[in-house]
Amino acid sequence: MINVGVIGYGYWGPNLVRNFSESTSTQVVAVSDLNPERLALVQRRYPTIRTTLDHRELWADSNIDAIAIATPVTSHFDLGMGSLKAGKHVLIEKPLTESYEQAQLLVEEAEKRDLVLMVDHTFVYTGAIRKMKELVTTGELGKIYYYDSVRVNLGLFQHDVNVIWDLAVHDLSIMEHILPSHPIAVSATGVSHIEGQPENIAYITLFFEDNLIAHVHVNWLAPVKVRSTLIGGSKKMIVYDDLQPSEKVKVYNKGITLNNNDNESRYQMLIGYRTGDMWAPHLDMTEALQREVKHFADCIENGALPITNGQSGLRVVQILEAATQSMMNRGEPVELNTMRIPA
Amino acid sequence: MINVGVIGYGYWGPNLVRNFSESTSTQVVAVSDLNPERLALVQRRYPTIRTTLDHRELWADSNIDAIAIATPVTSHFDLGMGSLKAGKHVLIEKPLTESYEQAQLLVEEAEKRDLVLMVDHTFVYTGAIRKMKELVTTGELGKIYYYDSVRVNLGLFQHDVNVIWDLAVHDLSIMEHILPSHPIAVSATGVSHIEGQPENIAYITLFFEDNLIAHVHVNWLAPVKVRSTLIGGSKKMIVYDDLQPSEKVKVYNKGITLNNNDNESRYQMLIGYRTGDMWAPHLDMTEALQREVKHFADCIENGALPITNGQSGLRVVQILEAATQSMMNRGEPVELNTMRIPA
Amino acid sequence: MINVGVIGYGYWGPNLVRNFSESTSTQVVAVSDLNPERLALVQRRYPTIRTTLDHRELWADSNIDAIAIATPVTSHFDLGMGSLKAGKHVLIEKPLTESYEQAQLLVEEAEKRDLVLMVDHTFVYTGAIRKMKELVTTGELGKIYYYDSVRVNLGLFQHDVNVIWDLAVHDLSIMEHILPSHPIAVSATGVSHIEGQPENIAYITLFFEDNLIAHVHVNWLAPVKVRSTLIGGSKKMIVYDDLQPSEKVKVYNKGITLNNNDNESRYQMLIGYRTGDMWAPHLDMTEALQREVKHFADCIENGALPITNGQSGLRVVQILEAATQSMMNRGEPVELNTMRIPA
Amino acid sequence: MINVGVIGYGYWGPNLVRNFSESTSTQVVAVSDLNPERLALVQRRYPTIRTTLDHRELWADSNIDAIAIATPVTSHFDLGMGSLKAGKHVLIEKPLTESYEQAQLLVEEAEKRDLVLMVDHTFVYTGAIRKMKELVTTGELGKIYYYDSVRVNLGLFQHDVNVIWDLAVHDLSIMEHILPSHPIAVSATGVSHIEGQPENIAYITLFFEDNLIAHVHVNWLAPVKVRSTLIGGSKKMIVYDDLQPSEKVKVYNKGITLNNNDNESRYQMLIGYRTGDMWAPHLDMTEALQREVKHFADCIENGALPITNGQSGLRVVQILEAATQSMMNRGEPVELNTMRIPA
Repeated sequence: MINVGVIGYGYWGPNLVRNFSESTSTQVVAVSDLNPERLALVQRRYPTIRTTLDHRELWADSNIDAIAIATPVTSHFDLGMGSLKAGKHVLIEKPLTESYEQAQLLVEEAEKRDLVLMVDHTFVYTGAIRKMKELVTTGELGKIYYYDSVRVNLGLFQHDVNVIWDLAVHDLSIMEHILPSHPIAVSATGVSHIEGQPENIAYITLFFEDNLIAHVHVNWLAPVKVRSTLIGGSKKMIVYDDLQPSEKVKVYNKGITLNNNDNESRYQMLIGYRTGDMWAPHLDMTEALQREVKHFADCIENGALPITNGQSGLRVVQILEAATQSMMNRGEPVELNTMRIPA
Repeated sequence: MINVGVIGYGYWGPNLVRNFSESTSTQVVAVSDLNPERLALVQRRYPTIRTTLDHRELWADSNIDAIAIATPVTSHFDLGMGSLKAGKHVLIEKPLTESYEQAQLLVEEAEKRDLVLMVDHTFVYTGAIRKMKELVTTGELGKIYYYDSVRVNLGLFQHDVNVIWDLAVHDLSIMEHILPSHPIAVSATGVSHIEGQPENIAYITLFFEDNLIAHVHVNWLAPVKVRSTLIGGSKKMIVYDDLQPSEKVKVYNKGITLNNNDNESRYQMLIGYRTGDMWAPHLDMTEALQREVKHFADCIENGALPITNGQSGLRVVQILEAATQSMMNRGEPVELNTMRIPA
Repeated sequence: MINVGVIGYGYWGPNLVRNFSESTSTQVVAVSDLNPERLALVQRRYPTIRTTLDHRELWADSNIDAIAIATPVTSHFDLGMGSLKAGKHVLIEKPLTESYEQAQLLVEEAEKRDLVLMVDHTFVYTGAIRKMKELVTTGELGKIYYYDSVRVNLGLFQHDVNVIWDLAVHDLSIMEHILPSHPIAVSATGVSHIEGQPENIAYITLFFEDNLIAHVHVNWLAPVKVRSTLIGGSKKMIVYDDLQPSEKVKVYNKGITLNNNDNESRYQMLIGYRTGDMWAPHLDMTEALQREVKHFADCIENGALPITNGQSGLRVVQILEAATQSMMNRGEPVELNTMRIPA
Repeated sequence: MINVGVIGYGYWGPNLVRNFSESTSTQVVAVSDLNPERLALVQRRYPTIRTTLDHRELWADSNIDAIAIATPVTSHFDLGMGSLKAGKHVLIEKPLTESYEQAQLLVEEAEKRDLVLMVDHTFVYTGAIRKMKELVTTGELGKIYYYDSVRVNLGLFQHDVNVIWDLAVHDLSIMEHILPSHPIAVSATGVSHIEGQPENIAYITLFFEDNLIAHVHVNWLAPVKVRSTLIGGSKKMIVYDDLQPSEKVKVYNKGITLNNNDNESRYQMLIGYRTGDMWAPHLDMTEALQREVKHFADCIENGALPITNGQSGLRVVQILEAATQSMMNRGEPVELNTMRIPA
């Protein structure tokens, strides 16, 4: 049984506490938050959990094996580093940190201390993403051509982070997991429509080796909610619509065919179409966080590297940082491969 | 009655011939095409129309008032210029020309000769676009924040032009008509997935003064067909789905509210939401080309400037050219305001 | 403050307890259930609520003003009658009783004792149904022509009631509220696909005066979930799709036009079409049960008749009974107006 | 080469003439219509086809092998019988005749003369219906439980036939082809909302042996167009949506499971759910009428019985007649097995 302390009981913390509590591998022994009302809520719901306004009590408690951090991103680095230095395994809400440098330091600290550092890229643990990962990895889609995602709605305007850090982080963490390679450059555009506020609409293009391209559209100011992704492969293509109650992932046996035609003058005929069945695989609908919490416990017990480990989080933060930089310069591309990623 | 000659009876030419024939203001007197089989088809369908392999016969015919050109874009400039020099009014399929320079020359020639030069931006004449133009112009949407369009499907791969010139031209011509100002810079990204072929997927961002932003996603290699546009305004927002058999344009009375709150510490409360009714106006379903052909005739008769005049075509070509250039450099932005547009 | 006792804490009871607890007009003082585990759950959630295995304790408690009953339908009559005889106001889950006769007795008992008898036709209190009621009542739809509803999915097979009593009860209670008159006859068809079990698919037609017709399709064995209603009026028509996250109610300004044409031989021209805008009114998304619980309290305080009063419940039970009878005889119609309904 | 004469060049006739003309097995030699303008249109489109106001000229022409009839249903019997008596093979638009008796006489005449009598149940020849027929016949769906179809829109009000004869005929001809047995009784309801006009909304239930049930909802006065069918089987279930541009047929690997549980008291557990993949098979999109015309020619050449032979047409007419009769009596069921069908 792994004893967990949770820092932050705001929007996401309750989900962590609930899942850590319901898992047979973990139990929550303490929760800290700066707001006494939130702590009172914890006590009503879980009378046996200790609560405190001071997260350092969790670090000092030798009974606690792991810390889960669900606070605003500005505090992730300090809380993460403090937790590691206190010898705790750490799970941090996405994005891992505010900057690439901070993420590097966390990754190195965890490696040095042989502690599990995991980032809460929740979508990676959904049945839909797991199925898509499987379809890509087994080669069912063929060579991957593109990844295109739209994540828009009339959403909560954030004041401390732009829409890329708020919404695109989901798509980037999914791509980081699914795609066969890492991007080498990024171009992003976007604007703020409210003076003095962060960008509320943004478009990000990621360039990969071998003509793979990815794109994300995020928007806090859309009249309708859209959560839709296209993945194009040389053999098959996917439409993933997260808003569908069922059949979220549809696999189309469609594509193009290339005919080797020696007759140069008839080059127009080289590209043909192929249209076959569509198939919507049954998806495991287990709550993603339940599976994730179990995986965190397994990694602690077995000294294994989590699927969404610190370096995954680091790579996502790197792209968020580069995209924000490119957006300041109207899409001027930023190379990613010049940044150092710990091996 | 205006006598029209049509050059090119391939994919689009038949629609022009049919609409010019059915209009009470125009009649088709001659059609030219390089392919005798296409001309034979004209003769079967319209026994009274003269056909010829040589388009210069149309220029030489003093009985012909106007020439409509529906040929590959590479021939637009030569055929357009020749027609103007022969003293004919001209309607040219989109995009107007292969380059900004060519477009400038056509515009100047038409002005010099006081001839109508119109570009066939067909969508502009649909009921849906006309209604959206009205909603923007009357201020119903408020200040325009963004325009976002997706135009993808498993489409015909072109060999001579990339997907921007083939598909984005539609969106650019719609924006050119609807939006209150012209873009000042463009950033575009895209790749080809087939060696030696033009780009088959592309993303274009257009920057305007005053934080208006526009974006187009075009793709020949998508598993599903999408023709969907979002327009965000400060008062209302539009979803335009051209694939719907009815209710193509939906107007959402949704948006954000800004509260002037002096209490700085509560800045999080400044932005609120507003959600009201949705409304799908009834659209005039008259065939766009029928309305367009009538407008062309009216402009000739009254010496008026067409809605989709040469300068509209010129501006669209300018963006196509700049977007292609930006795409070569991974999104590096290209300024548009440095190019000269005839007054 | 009205003191409420709740009998039954199974599937629906928790919603009643939660809403009565959160309302400022009511509080729950006691809950009874036959299952000790369910009562333990109540105690964990609401330490101040008294629990008991014996519902008669609630009747005996002079401190309790009203009883809410959320038990299987077979017990509704006994529990309802007992509650009335104990001098309590009563809210009963739908359907009101197992039979028309039972419902009559309850209605009469409540009238005699001047107690509020309300049936929990929850849908009636949703924003969608309230809006539709308003559109019908204000004459916006014109004369009502038909009401057509489909309520199907791969649902829980019941063992004690057929699919009409389980699912159609929702549609019948909505119709009872919305439509301008009451049905005069019913024809129903349906079968069971599992030997010895109640019918799992059924179709009900209701006949009204003046050519109004209504129809319900209910099915426990459908591959997809559908909750869709059409209402046809002489001026406008409604599509109500309860599964949409927004725009659940769409009002179409469509219909037919009748031309008074004296020329008898051209009778084919008498009926034309009319197509106008579509409009999706913004709906109040307050939880229906919250509004309903408030209404129950108001009626008790003011001695008013609830919207979903005993006679509403009686009329719905009458149709359920008649429909089941008709279904036994392959659609042979059953007259409703021969049954007596208390004034 | 089979020589065909076509009687009737109104709404459907042009499709027949076009398909008979384009088929390599058939050619149209003559067309008759009562309207000279329609005949002039034939001549413009097909200069080599003979036209006449008198269909008897087609009967008298010994060069003509087969007659296709696309006239109002009131004339089907006379024209069909006359054609057969003239020794011609016959293709008749659906419904075959106005009455069961007429249909019987046609079927008997064709048999006596050894001529092909085919009814134009066009849907049967579409890729979607062919695929569904295959799925039913191969047992992929398991035992068929129900067939449910909705065919509604704001449609053309007919003056001579009710909505059942106009729209339900499509669904009945599809069922007649797909389902494993024939109905034994029918119950139908419906009304007219316009005085003196035929019913514009109707609901039909068909009863089969072994608890198979079918239902059709047809409506000329709906705000939206729906063409949707559910087929429930013990192993799999189908959703067929004819308005989808692709994936018209979706096969759901869903259903219920029956557990043989000896413990009587736990009977609630006997029925469980099964949920698996969804699959949309690629459909042959060949025009149905093209395939049908080819099949008609093949049957003539080989003396074979058409898929949609006279008896198929007869069975459909029998149901139309019985449904109309039931509708007059508010759903009172009509037995079908008492009517004689020629072996």
